[in-house]
Amino acid sequence: MKPVIILNFKTYLEGTGAKAISIAKACEAVAAETGLEIIAAPQLPDIYQVARSVNIPVYSQHLDGTTGGSTTGHILAECVKYAGASGTLINHSERRLTLAQIDESITAAVRTGLSTVVCTNNIATTRAAALLNPDYVAIEPPELIGSGIPVSKADPDIVTGSVEAVHAINPNVKVLCGAGISKGEDLAAALELGSVGVLLASGIIKAVDPKAALYELVSKV
Amino acid sequence: MKPVIILNFKTYLEGTGAKAISIAKACEAVAAETGLEIIAAPQLPDIYQVARSVNIPVYSQHLDGTTGGSTTGHILAECVKYAGASGTLINHSERRLTLAQIDESITAAVRTGLSTVVCTNNIATTRAAALLNPDYVAIEPPELIGSGIPVSKADPDIVTGSVEAVHAINPNVKVLCGAGISKGEDLAAALELGSVGVLLASGIIKAVDPKAALYELVSKV
Amino acid sequence: MKPVIILNFKTYLEGTGAKAISIAKACEAVAAETGLEIIAAPQLPDIYQVARSVNIPVYSQHLDGTTGGSTTGHILAECVKYAGASGTLINHSERRLTLAQIDESITAAVRTGLSTVVCTNNIATTRAAALLNPDYVAIEPPELIGSGIPVSKADPDIVTGSVEAVHAINPNVKVLCGAGISKGEDLAAALELGSVGVLLASGIIKAVDPKAALYELVSKV
Amino acid sequence: MKPVIILNFKTYLEGTGAKAISIAKACEAVAAETGLEIIAAPQLPDIYQVARSVNIPVYSQHLDGTTGGSTTGHILAECVKYAGASGTLINHSERRLTLAQIDESITAAVRTGLSTVVCTNNIATTRAAALLNPDYVAIEPPELIGSGIPVSKADPDIVTGSVEAVHAINPNVKVLCGAGISKGEDLAAALELGSVGVLLASGIIKAVDPKAALYELVSKV
Repeated sequence: MKPVIILNFKTYLEGTGAKAISIAKACEAVAAETGLEIIAAPQLPDIYQVARSVNIPVYSQHLDGTTGGSTTGHILAECVKYAGASGTLINHSERRLTLAQIDESITAAVRTGLSTVVCTNNIATTRAAALLNPDYVAIEPPELIGSGIPVSKADPDIVTGSVEAVHAINPNVKVLCGAGISKGEDLAAALELGSVGVLLASGIIKAVDPKAALYELVSKV
Repeated sequence: MKPVIILNFKTYLEGTGAKAISIAKACEAVAAETGLEIIAAPQLPDIYQVARSVNIPVYSQHLDGTTGGSTTGHILAECVKYAGASGTLINHSERRLTLAQIDESITAAVRTGLSTVVCTNNIATTRAAALLNPDYVAIEPPELIGSGIPVSKADPDIVTGSVEAVHAINPNVKVLCGAGISKGEDLAAALELGSVGVLLASGIIKAVDPKAALYELVSKV
Repeated sequence: MKPVIILNFKTYLEGTGAKAISIAKACEAVAAETGLEIIAAPQLPDIYQVARSVNIPVYSQHLDGTTGGSTTGHILAECVKYAGASGTLINHSERRLTLAQIDESITAAVRTGLSTVVCTNNIATTRAAALLNPDYVAIEPPELIGSGIPVSKADPDIVTGSVEAVHAINPNVKVLCGAGISKGEDLAAALELGSVGVLLASGIIKAVDPKAALYELVSKV
Repeated sequence: MKPVIILNFKTYLEGTGAKAISIAKACEAVAAETGLEIIAAPQLPDIYQVARSVNIPVYSQHLDGTTGGSTTGHILAECVKYAGASGTLINHSERRLTLAQIDESITAAVRTGLSTVVCTNNIATTRAAALLNPDYVAIEPPELIGSGIPVSKADPDIVTGSVEAVHAINPNVKVLCGAGISKGEDLAAALELGSVGVLLASGIIKAVDPKAALYELVSKV
């Protein structure tokens, strides 16, 4: 399986609007050259334009479990799909959901054929989330997010522990890790620890040259 | 001032994707023919396509107060603006915000030149919201939303009371009313009660023929 | 193992203050006479008085995961324990928590020796919750809560399915069921379906004679 | 009018259980000696014991707007009152509410005769909150809470601005200020800036000798 890199654009101004398209194109170029799976997760209003501009998977940053109706301002799977997304993050540490909502959100994604990445904060919640049958869980210790200190270095045991726990409980689910990832050595370490890839954000989005930063990221694999 | 009609597409499947564009075009046609101000508020991932398809104002259904950054899944004003919106609902009863968040959301909208419609549930909260200087407040008794019983008939005093209260406290703010509005007589009654227009949803979006429903809506003004 | 009955006082005025004490004493009398385990879950400000008045377990209706500090208005395990509670509901459908918060709340309970009952809404979330190692999971289909239609009759498969799923994934966890339970036949059916007991509320708290209602509840076991 | 000091115990372990009672007694002693109004705001499960132990006002840290019923884990005004509280904080920065909930919470407090202190974060939200007719608004810039840097020194204009704005919009509402307050000079400055008193927490609760810290706090007025 090819290593997977999910680039979360968050709401960084450096990854908004025209800049979102530009960074997504950089992802596409690096993916094409390296054969890696690189997924762009821009903001919701940017999904349409990004998805029309590149030939790599585009994910939403959030999905609600609504089946459509009286849920103003919620994010409907059918709408996200129509805009061009093929997957979604769920329960990111900056957009937490209740347990019932995570389950409903996965159900909505499955209903529409969207891939799912449930973000979690420790081994216990990773195991619980894996039981809900997402495509991926992404373990991210919240205290390391945006810290510049890679989880693969600061807390390698949480990665190997998550991989082992998920393997034992639901081997269909793939494990990503995130928080503090930005360099080639971080990605290489994440893969060595048994994860199938990484979820990252500021290290690329806020880089002076995001494309160069992406090349550096994939340089060790 | 022209009466204002804001059509909230909520997450109705009947107002998602291609159907959102189609309903927005119906709004545009009716607005062009009648000279009324009709505003379309589609789902976030639909804003771009709707805004590119019609020449009427397009509003977001929700806006967060983030200034950009580590707020995955939040709705950034700059991104909504870039997608083509010129305004936003804030604090809809199906997407409530804290008082501090309403203030931050208005601040974000002002920063980017988006018009603001703060939804409220009674006269007390309408007055409080009016002090935060949005362009509009939209008084909607939650128990009447989607009921088919128009606020203008079920509780006319809440409309006149809101109009008087806002006029006294901050006359720059215009008052809309909503909940249960779908017919021409409802819009006419809303205007007679002193509001400048209405916020409505299912009566049009779920109509067999939304365009015909819009024509009926504006037939009494 | 003795059947377990957890009586959730919610915020019913009929179960507040002096009336909370009175209902808790009825629970104590019925428990003493029948040998059943009856647990009272009064409101937070009532825990102290209820716990001082009866010799049955008293549970909190909610617990936050805070370890103490800058969390004004949150519910600290040490404080609940000091007031006299020996356990707590977590994630009731009227007080949902994020997945991470459920985990933190269980951790806080374990830290202070409080028993834990995690409420869930379907088999999928019940399995996930069971992995977090609470003492009990309580499966309650939200649409049946307060309906007067017992889960044991309306949806027996959700009870047997939860029991089987939890047995397979984490046999240390005991399964309760709830929603619509009020009669002796409901409790008997719940036990027959494999649960160890029930979580109930309005059927007893709002009864004209709560003590008589409790006697009726336990009359078939 | 006597200066008002509201001591928020938050969930500090140093202010939980027996220690809550001890600190409340220190408040009572200092109030008796100085004639100042000192109000204790302990955790919800501690309200009963604290209220029975001292003869000063005891406030809740939070109140929900429920009128009683299917709101498990919520905080009902009647229950808080029965436990011995005579007032409540509402919308503390660590327990924010929606605008509609703030209004409902004040309504619940008025229904039961509880005094209300609505916490706010800037002049705009202070004005809006004042329109909802609480007894007090407490302006606390969130970034200064727990900082040790007193709002009266870091941002005196937010205090005078709030006092002026509230005086203009609803002179019945009294203004408190908070965040970083711990010393006698902070309280003196708060009063000079026009507020009627302060809301404070860690400076007293976490002091080695809370009673001595209280004496120091009131030493300049």
